[in-house]
Amino acid sequence: MSDRISQLSDWMKENNVDVCFITSKENVFYLSGFYSEAHERLLGMAVFQDIEPFLICPGMDAGNARKSGWSHEVVSHSDTDNPWELTKQAIGKRVSNVRTISIEKEHMNVERFEAFTHLFPKAVFLSAEEKLHQLRMVKDVKELATLREACQLADYAIEVGAAELSEGKTEMDILAAVEYELKRKGISEMSFSTMVLTGKNAAAPHGTPGLTKISRGDLVLFDLGVVLDGYCSDITRTLAFGEINQQQQEIYDAVLRAQLKSLSIVRPGVTCMELDQTARKEIAAAGYGDHFPHRLGHGLGISVHEYPSITETNPLELKEGMVFTIEPGIYVPDVAGVRIEDDVLVTANGFETLTKYPKELKII
Amino acid sequence: MSDRISQLSDWMKENNVDVCFITSKENVFYLSGFYSEAHERLLGMAVFQDIEPFLICPGMDAGNARKSGWSHEVVSHSDTDNPWELTKQAIGKRVSNVRTISIEKEHMNVERFEAFTHLFPKAVFLSAEEKLHQLRMVKDVKELATLREACQLADYAIEVGAAELSEGKTEMDILAAVEYELKRKGISEMSFSTMVLTGKNAAAPHGTPGLTKISRGDLVLFDLGVVLDGYCSDITRTLAFGEINQQQQEIYDAVLRAQLKSLSIVRPGVTCMELDQTARKEIAAAGYGDHFPHRLGHGLGISVHEYPSITETNPLELKEGMVFTIEPGIYVPDVAGVRIEDDVLVTANGFETLTKYPKELKII
Repeated sequence: MSDRISQLSDWMKENNVDVCFITSKENVFYLSGFYSEAHERLLGMAVFQDIEPFLICPGMDAGNARKSGWSHEVVSHSDTDNPWELTKQAIGKRVSNVRTISIEKEHMNVERFEAFTHLFPKAVFLSAEEKLHQLRMVKDVKELATLREACQLADYAIEVGAAELSEGKTEMDILAAVEYELKRKGISEMSFSTMVLTGKNAAAPHGTPGLTKISRGDLVLFDLGVVLDGYCSDITRTLAFGEINQQQQEIYDAVLRAQLKSLSIVRPGVTCMELDQTARKEIAAAGYGDHFPHRLGHGLGISVHEYPSITETNPLELKEGMVFTIEPGIYVPDVAGVRIEDDVLVTANGFETLTKYPKELKII
Repeated sequence: MSDRISQLSDWMKENNVDVCFITSKENVFYLSGFYSEAHERLLGMAVFQDIEPFLICPGMDAGNARKSGWSHEVVSHSDTDNPWELTKQAIGKRVSNVRTISIEKEHMNVERFEAFTHLFPKAVFLSAEEKLHQLRMVKDVKELATLREACQLADYAIEVGAAELSEGKTEMDILAAVEYELKRKGISEMSFSTMVLTGKNAAAPHGTPGLTKISRGDLVLFDLGVVLDGYCSDITRTLAFGEINQQQQEIYDAVLRAQLKSLSIVRPGVTCMELDQTARKEIAAAGYGDHFPHRLGHGLGISVHEYPSITETNPLELKEGMVFTIEPGIYVPDVAGVRIEDDVLVTANGFETLTKYPKELKII
């Protein structure tokens, strides 16, 4: 069994869980290496304490499951099968008395839960999500290689965006050009809806890109990322289009100082809250404490938002191999919105930024 | 109360449902006019038999809820509130003895369900989804106006794609150009991942666009749609790049005949299965019965896949105001993949296609 599955099995032993039945495509991918979008059809993976796991998936995907390297049993179902009955049988072959089952309670819907509890009416259902979040938080060498490449593509996207800035173009023109170049490199999915926001639009907390034209003296905010082989990158840069005024410069400088200062203390053992508080103090000292309304950052990997959460109150200690964003921002309505975001890896003695586009204010 | 809410209330009376608590953004939008992506925060709408409904949403969205035209109560919650307690209080003010609650069992997750059942431990929970699917199936005048416009943009996207076809370009080049032009018109979201598949790639049931170059003699399949003001369009056209061979032509002609023939019988009272069977017979008669592996079509509106489902076995009768796709296809591995898809409105005496890009084989 893979190391990831073994770690889950260890947790199951500690908590007397007989079966862990995973149904989100993200966690099935993480544990099995098989990525599949089964939509309304059942995709699941069952893990046991000391017995071989199995996958269940629609028949048309069974070949891909094997191709992806899964060496244990694949139970396949057709549209006329009852996949829950097949699941019950495959579990029954492995464990005769199922008392405790763990599932993803944030992912499984009520309809499926009712079907599942109907099969095991006496079982207790626990959530496996907390443990899975913990496992996914620390990345291995292969995951880091993919994340590095995804971050390089995010850097490239900012380069394209910077080159596209010119008088009269709209936010959507620039956004379209950025995504066009990524698609030409074969990127078919962004981590989230790309943001290109100019001037006052960047200062609204819920800005969406539109047909506003960029003007001389605007700060233009780019926030984007790509999905590469199942892993997400996420970068924000704010560029100046023409000369900006003193207050815009002051805001930019405060955000950059906050970003660099919190980044500088990243190493194993430091807590998430220390990072957030460091950036928050720097911004408050510059007089903009009321204009930094969000957490400092979030973990990323298979999901663009995962653990650890870099908030003011999270006591979690950093560990080598964690990857998260550091993205302080200041948003002053009718003046400017500035955010600077890197994807950061915790190394044995410090950190490495995986996104590398320059952060000194670039005037175009 | 709006007509949509009244219809839901009538169903609640017939089924003795005291409270219907809706939490999917699609159905909240459909019933209230308020579109909001609350992510992990609670967005909900409670409907009663004869009492005013209420919305519950994060505080930062409450202003938008009112702006969207919602004239009933808005209960707002902050990140330190327990939104489930607030929901319980707001329900308690309206109904003292809650025995039956309907929810969206395909949408609500187990974690939320446990929080909700904890508040009303004696209540029975039914699914409201079937009724909501039925309501959404028949479109009103305002919905049709939006769908028409979304379909015009889908037609435009095919025009762009056709103009982009030239030797040496890849599927992703063409896809990128199509989405670029849509973004420049302000379209920020596609109904689903755009497909541009050329030659043999179009003949695979699960093709994904990539870096394959188009070649003379290829059939190029486009499948795409846009989201406009919350409503989805969906079109497929297959174009010839250069002269094609006799078998490709034969396949194209069979698909087109099947599409036109099933379309021609659309009117109120005809069943979904009659449509599917009509297309299926035509394709079987051409000798390709084994190469049409999917249903004829699906309803569309706020979701790109909704009711009615146009399958071989669905006895549902068409009604004026229904909108769905008709999209027969033939996929012969290593030879060709052809699909032709329109979005179709059922009118009082027949039908109207909302997508209007020509269907006669276009050779570029």
